[in-house]
Amino acid sequence: MKENLGDTNALYPLVTTLVGSVVDGKPDFATVAHVGIAHLKGITLGMGKIHLTNEGIKANREFSVSIPSVAMVEVTDYVGMASGKTIDKSGLFKVFYGELKGAPLVDDCPVTMACRLIEHVELPTHDLFVGEIVETHADVDVLTNGVVDLAKVRPLLFDMASKKYWSLGEPLAKCWSVGKGYSAP
Amino acid sequence: MKENLGDTNALYPLVTTLVGSVVDGKPDFATVAHVGIAHLKGITLGMGKIHLTNEGIKANREFSVSIPSVAMVEVTDYVGMASGKTIDKSGLFKVFYGELKGAPLVDDCPVTMACRLIEHVELPTHDLFVGEIVETHADVDVLTNGVVDLAKVRPLLFDMASKKYWSLGEPLAKCWSVGKGYSAP
Repeated sequence: MKENLGDTNALYPLVTTLVGSVVDGKPDFATVAHVGIAHLKGITLGMGKIHLTNEGIKANREFSVSIPSVAMVEVTDYVGMASGKTIDKSGLFKVFYGELKGAPLVDDCPVTMACRLIEHVELPTHDLFVGEIVETHADVDVLTNGVVDLAKVRPLLFDMASKKYWSLGEPLAKCWSVGKGYSAP
Repeated sequence: MKENLGDTNALYPLVTTLVGSVVDGKPDFATVAHVGIAHLKGITLGMGKIHLTNEGIKANREFSVSIPSVAMVEVTDYVGMASGKTIDKSGLFKVFYGELKGAPLVDDCPVTMACRLIEHVELPTHDLFVGEIVETHADVDVLTNGVVDLAKVRPLLFDMASKKYWSLGEPLAKCWSVGKGYSAP
């Protein structure tokens, strides 16, 4: 039996990220779990317009998306509560830059991506940014056979209903494979 | 030490969904894990233009997003491999409708949402759809204190690097809370 929950958004969990941009010459960060994928190389960010980080993204048309591990849960949550308008976040992480000087890459995170802004949809309260990935850096110790191994990354999965970060579980089945034997009842 | 992986998209895992629309008067479905959140009530879908389901979304400006549980892994994967252009998917699921007649809600899924299309960004190979949630229905047995309990939903989390579905793990910490005690080193 189903219950109607009104306009509740139940598209969770989503991976918690640190989004970075350069504001007034310094890196700034926001904790953003309202993220998504637009196409194979394209990342979406749904960010309340109030964030300082948005200013840097709009000014430079570049940003970074870094994936903190479980061990970084405290600082990640802290960044999500502290506004860059009142607190200088530029010293919170060890930062490096690749080709894009507007995308402060977070060395503390096991995975960090530099993106070029390709679309900006202005919604009433939010900026929807679409970025194309230019370069992705990962710690060698989270790679298995040269690709990112989520079991080693240990991302923080965000859920709005419980207001909790969740861990990732185990691999269940192969995609484009487990359904091959399916026949409709 | 970091390794440069080029333009690898590492924004995973994302929750695997069944996206539904009405095409030629019948429900059609696509398996879509390239999803995201644009704002509190807004869902993004990054869908290759080849999908038949896109036609229904564009025609009716409505769609559904349903979250299959682990027990539905075979049919979910099957829907992702079978094209609605060659196979009729209208009988795969028990479907019901709420207010939006272009949003076929999947009763088999523990959670199913009806959305109205509010933005459509045409990218070279993909349609980026942004929908606003109109109504969400959830099985009463996946609710805890009236809200969706992810531990009961047991979603399928998609990862491109491993090409696997993963399970959700355990709750780790409270958001907007665990970082309160953080002080920068």
